[in-house]
Amino acid sequence: MDEFTPPSLEASGVVPPEAAKSMSGLAMMRAIIEGRLPPPPMAATLEFAVELAEEGRVVFVGRPSFRHYNPFGVAHGGYAGALLDSCMTCAVQSTLEPGFGTTTLEYKVSMVRPMTEKTGIVRAEGKTLYVGKRSGTAEGRIIDAAGRLLAHGTTTCLIFSV
Amino acid sequence: MDEFTPPSLEASGVVPPEAAKSMSGLAMMRAIIEGRLPPPPMAATLEFAVELAEEGRVVFVGRPSFRHYNPFGVAHGGYAGALLDSCMTCAVQSTLEPGFGTTTLEYKVSMVRPMTEKTGIVRAEGKTLYVGKRSGTAEGRIIDAAGRLLAHGTTTCLIFSV
Amino acid sequence: MDEFTPPSLEASGVVPPEAAKSMSGLAMMRAIIEGRLPPPPMAATLEFAVELAEEGRVVFVGRPSFRHYNPFGVAHGGYAGALLDSCMTCAVQSTLEPGFGTTTLEYKVSMVRPMTEKTGIVRAEGKTLYVGKRSGTAEGRIIDAAGRLLAHGTTTCLIFSV
Amino acid sequence: MDEFTPPSLEASGVVPPEAAKSMSGLAMMRAIIEGRLPPPPMAATLEFAVELAEEGRVVFVGRPSFRHYNPFGVAHGGYAGALLDSCMTCAVQSTLEPGFGTTTLEYKVSMVRPMTEKTGIVRAEGKTLYVGKRSGTAEGRIIDAAGRLLAHGTTTCLIFSV
Repeated sequence: MDEFTPPSLEASGVVPPEAAKSMSGLAMMRAIIEGRLPPPPMAATLEFAVELAEEGRVVFVGRPSFRHYNPFGVAHGGYAGALLDSCMTCAVQSTLEPGFGTTTLEYKVSMVRPMTEKTGIVRAEGKTLYVGKRSGTAEGRIIDAAGRLLAHGTTTCLIFSV
Repeated sequence: MDEFTPPSLEASGVVPPEAAKSMSGLAMMRAIIEGRLPPPPMAATLEFAVELAEEGRVVFVGRPSFRHYNPFGVAHGGYAGALLDSCMTCAVQSTLEPGFGTTTLEYKVSMVRPMTEKTGIVRAEGKTLYVGKRSGTAEGRIIDAAGRLLAHGTTTCLIFSV
Repeated sequence: MDEFTPPSLEASGVVPPEAAKSMSGLAMMRAIIEGRLPPPPMAATLEFAVELAEEGRVVFVGRPSFRHYNPFGVAHGGYAGALLDSCMTCAVQSTLEPGFGTTTLEYKVSMVRPMTEKTGIVRAEGKTLYVGKRSGTAEGRIIDAAGRLLAHGTTTCLIFSV
Repeated sequence: MDEFTPPSLEASGVVPPEAAKSMSGLAMMRAIIEGRLPPPPMAATLEFAVELAEEGRVVFVGRPSFRHYNPFGVAHGGYAGALLDSCMTCAVQSTLEPGFGTTTLEYKVSMVRPMTEKTGIVRAEGKTLYVGKRSGTAEGRIIDAAGRLLAHGTTTCLIFSV
């Protein structure tokens, strides 16, 4: 995928609580990818989308543009943070059985190269590092189409029964 | 200020490079507050605004809403990250003389209470902890109108000559 | 206290599990301060000690010396990390009732000024930022006798029943 | 190497400033490995040693023991922090030409499994993620002899001319 159509705010929404309780994390993500559940509003607002979900590995895609700029004409650090938080927390979530949920306790983001509208499509890949009964950790990387590292991060998630 | 009108994307923009070179960090932020320079596009996209800037202390204001939601009906972690990165990096920038610039090397965000559209106005306050010749650090906190802590973070910024 | 005698490895030890279960976090720390429970071995190895414990605030004291040096003749980053992890996790622990325990999920350390044997006594003060049922966060600062900031950090702790 | 003899404090020392200026980062580390330069005092104090250095990848070895324990009978978080800070900052340093130095601005440590004297030999491997002119980042992992992940981290280093 070298282009992508970001979700619209109108088509976005939250996951019904019943679905959140009855589905595994991976099933929920695949339902969003396949359009059976709506993408979240923040994905519409920041124009990104989940592209791939496996157990312990989730990839998001986006395209930095003017709407993400900080005062200096490059993507705001919050853009990298949103992509990384998405892919890292979803990586943890993708390992959870039905009846379990997760929430981000903290994440850290390192920005190593600027993103602008010339950057083109970027992908944010999250992978679990550890998943236990009560907490999990993951790492994430944002790369451009040429595979250059643009930003990276780690997260700590709480895991709980729902 | 208990309500605020977020900037529009059309009225937003980047700071002209000449202005970025000739102004102190504090002068630049005050010019944005007073409308002499445009707010950044990301502030329009995520609906937040800089409210106050002093040397070493900068406050942003926002209002969590549907557009910031993750799949579970609370503000995405990227929302807290964008607010905290803004106020923390600006706190470092607010200490810089003309001719110096700063960029975020990394930031860490801890989310301690969920934000929803019922949360109302939130403020993100950044304060410098250390500013040297080549790097600076700051901390930030997001609180609601009652002063309850919702999220907090720290950042490391690179400082350089422009 | 402008000098302090670090604990010896021989006098150090771990807290008996029965004590850990029956005491509040604050009672345990005060027992260590008052010598009714042994200081931990790591405090002997790195020559630091807990000095003060209140609910949500704990102070450690140490003195950087040759034994803490990295190859460049300043205290290794692990020294600041050990002091900050101690004071921050203990700050969270100091809020816990008997029957609850805490463990550090992660901590971040920023080193802003070097520490050497000329630095003299340093204090590491940890304060809770948030304590909930399943997790807590705290911040910490290392300062010298003149109050200059040398390093700072934050932590995320898991809270659980013992 | 399934056992190792930690350096003694008496044999440890700092790198002479002339050597630090004239050697590449990798040459300096190899000189420590080969005994032509002394190991740092902190390695003696915490009983760890650098084992392998390549450009962008450095491995330390240690053995958790009673001397590293916190009050609860497991290795203090500062132990993981010291090993990770060592291998991550050295990974950045290993890429530097003579005339350049680096210092840790910050590091973050996630502890995912406890370490005790039963854990045996552990290795901390640091790898660079990005190295630029003024800053670099690296990640690190501590694993046991069976390859199980015990702790992980990331760092941000400042790079400067010496």
